[in-house]
Amino acid sequence: MATSPSTAALLQYIAEDLTTASIPGAVWLRIEELFLDWLASALAASHTHPIPTFVQTARQMGGTGGGSAVVISTGEMSSPYWAAWVNAAASHTLEQDDLHNSSVMHPATVVFPAVFAAAHDNHKSGREMLLASIAGYEAGIRIAESLGRSHYRIFHTTATVGTLAAAVAVAKLLGFSFDQLVSAVGTAGTQTSGLWEFMRSGAGDSKQLHCAHAAANGLLSAYMTRDGLLGALDVVEGEAGLLRGLSKEDADAQRLVDGLGSRWAVLETSFKFHACCRHTHPAADALLDALDKHSITDPLQEIQEVVARVHQGAIDVLGPVDAGSPPQTVHAAKFSMKTTLALIALQKSASLWDFEQAALTDPAVLQFRERVSMELDGHVDGAYPKQWLGRVELRLTDGRVVQGGCDEPKGDPGNTLSRDELEDKFRRLHAYGGWSGERGELLMEWCWSLRTEENCTRPWLG
Amino acid sequence: MATSPSTAALLQYIAEDLTTASIPGAVWLRIEELFLDWLASALAASHTHPIPTFVQTARQMGGTGGGSAVVISTGEMSSPYWAAWVNAAASHTLEQDDLHNSSVMHPATVVFPAVFAAAHDNHKSGREMLLASIAGYEAGIRIAESLGRSHYRIFHTTATVGTLAAAVAVAKLLGFSFDQLVSAVGTAGTQTSGLWEFMRSGAGDSKQLHCAHAAANGLLSAYMTRDGLLGALDVVEGEAGLLRGLSKEDADAQRLVDGLGSRWAVLETSFKFHACCRHTHPAADALLDALDKHSITDPLQEIQEVVARVHQGAIDVLGPVDAGSPPQTVHAAKFSMKTTLALIALQKSASLWDFEQAALTDPAVLQFRERVSMELDGHVDGAYPKQWLGRVELRLTDGRVVQGGCDEPKGDPGNTLSRDELEDKFRRLHAYGGWSGERGELLMEWCWSLRTEENCTRPWLG
Repeated sequence: MATSPSTAALLQYIAEDLTTASIPGAVWLRIEELFLDWLASALAASHTHPIPTFVQTARQMGGTGGGSAVVISTGEMSSPYWAAWVNAAASHTLEQDDLHNSSVMHPATVVFPAVFAAAHDNHKSGREMLLASIAGYEAGIRIAESLGRSHYRIFHTTATVGTLAAAVAVAKLLGFSFDQLVSAVGTAGTQTSGLWEFMRSGAGDSKQLHCAHAAANGLLSAYMTRDGLLGALDVVEGEAGLLRGLSKEDADAQRLVDGLGSRWAVLETSFKFHACCRHTHPAADALLDALDKHSITDPLQEIQEVVARVHQGAIDVLGPVDAGSPPQTVHAAKFSMKTTLALIALQKSASLWDFEQAALTDPAVLQFRERVSMELDGHVDGAYPKQWLGRVELRLTDGRVVQGGCDEPKGDPGNTLSRDELEDKFRRLHAYGGWSGERGELLMEWCWSLRTEENCTRPWLG
Repeated sequence: MATSPSTAALLQYIAEDLTTASIPGAVWLRIEELFLDWLASALAASHTHPIPTFVQTARQMGGTGGGSAVVISTGEMSSPYWAAWVNAAASHTLEQDDLHNSSVMHPATVVFPAVFAAAHDNHKSGREMLLASIAGYEAGIRIAESLGRSHYRIFHTTATVGTLAAAVAVAKLLGFSFDQLVSAVGTAGTQTSGLWEFMRSGAGDSKQLHCAHAAANGLLSAYMTRDGLLGALDVVEGEAGLLRGLSKEDADAQRLVDGLGSRWAVLETSFKFHACCRHTHPAADALLDALDKHSITDPLQEIQEVVARVHQGAIDVLGPVDAGSPPQTVHAAKFSMKTTLALIALQKSASLWDFEQAALTDPAVLQFRERVSMELDGHVDGAYPKQWLGRVELRLTDGRVVQGGCDEPKGDPGNTLSRDELEDKFRRLHAYGGWSGERGELLMEWCWSLRTEENCTRPWLG
């Protein structure tokens, strides 16, 4: 059996046509920004549950006798597998890492950990690492899109497709031929996993494990391919492959080749502004709009009810969290539309600190959250996942019903974060992780010069 | 959300009711035999592709500075994760490891590597290791049965359910409470993967990787649970769990609790006699029956055509291999009904050596294999997977049409291998792996005394 045409075209593009010269300047700038944003997320979670458990496991399973790739949370060295594994978990812990809208996939947290570890281990330059990352984004996002919305109802796409995205990135870094790339994707594809069931139990730890699993096994797939391991030739489109096995009738292989070489998925990727599940962001920004537009200054007194009009995916992911009693952990609170909109209403912000300090215990938040509900909105759902529209309807205590809206949540490509805003976010996350300020400035400087950086390990190994 | 009743009952039984005293003597004897048979499979593949690649990867990712669990293929120590990973791959390389019929799962290759590594690491006794292994078999087989036949059409059940089986076994070894066991199964379940697509490309290497992945991540799930990681509470039966996400309408949660405490899945597990895919065995034994019954002494001259009448699963797994030109690798030949029946006809045997020496190059085998075909048989398919019936129809050159049949392939519980036959198989596999005879005798002695053995590592670490 040969590789099906769409998969073949995608992987041919990645292996042969995606070169340094073929990539527009804006894509280079954005991948640098996405890398910096990812590094901030990983640094921030250094002491946050469950990352210390991940660090300890990596030590036990990867040995403590040194290694060739850095564990960002501690600065220690480990093997590329376990470094990618911990760094991926860390960067997906605080809900501050990037998201690609139409694929509903978080690319940074699976692509960068794998490629960063492999770049260390193979002494690659910054430019090589960024080129490989672009490959991971462009391929991973298209594979995720091809799986359709039915996949996301059961599977955490970042986890499942993440394994392939990470494999493609490392394969590109290692300079694979088309045939090698096909095999690496086959080996990665047959290791895809990640079910949403954990969200229904409030067991957020699986979310980090999903990313760890994807990044590490994607890297492993590329490494083992280099060593001669053979994978399936048609793992995406084949009879017993991903589209048939892990999706329903909405799978569409055509999306694998959508705009190859002209459409840049990297440029479509959103930064997270609020520190919570991206499904809450459109409503959060719509609520900010309503507060502003209708000059609501004392929300606890003035607002009687908030209805967030949302797409189905928001109900699938957030619904179970808000079905029961208020969240008991900060991580669960980040998947509560009720808590998030309460914070937005009362604090005008849903930052790491807002969640840490107010989400679980502040009486006003606990009071306000009971006024929040979600409703499926046909228009919002129809636009999703290409657009993440925010719509809220408020019933005020004076009897009025007012609305707020947002067509591009803060951080979306059309409403992106400036480099100053990204630096500001970096500084906040860096401090949250307990790191000293000076080091953060050096890391940012290093990120902004990655395209000309000869040595990917400089800030860690000199 | 709580754990659904059937899953809860199964895990309650494993955590609380499955005790040393509750297990019949026959089950203890069989698990010892299954362990010996597994060890033989792992030893045999020490130098067979792709195991050297696995050993090398384990060294790179797990460190070379020692460890607490043995890599059977080389005798070196590694971390429990990578030891389980290599040993699982090795024991599934030569198609000699056990199979449980009605679940269509190979339990040994996923359960024993995990529990063996964890027993080393945690200084457990032989009896504790065997008890934990029984837990892995009893739970894993029932979970596999609950997924139904539709699961197996896309997914390699040994890989997917193997992760849970390995987690249950290690959890039992570590003495988990019910709550811990639920969490470990949740963490394992969300890491399940393994697609059949690789078979369609003849890329047999994924098969070994599947088992490696399952054993290692099952072990990891139990270890991380011990360290406080939380998993989904209802990963088997939940809305976004395994039965809903990885199976079709034939999933049946009732099978999770089938005969708990009275029916022993361990006793239903078959040993492999022929060194090839179990789906070929019923037809192989039926052909042996026909040769004998009809006194066919010169099959190349006397037989014009062999039709193997099979169940659908055989067509799904073996069909793609026989659809194209003759297999190019020994591993692929083991998934060819044509090659297997040619070996049986001409050599009366399909052993490791027959495949090695004759499967790819012997002109008579290449000639005979073109006379073999498979046909779906309603009766055979209806009995499957509870029974693996063998039926062949031969058209002879003298014009006669004759049949052969086998209701319990050699190695099935009703036609099992005696301890003498198992020792004989062990010696052959041990020698195939390039090991000296004396050591093999010591290892067998150790296996037969595992129930009273204080130290699981004796043959390796003294």
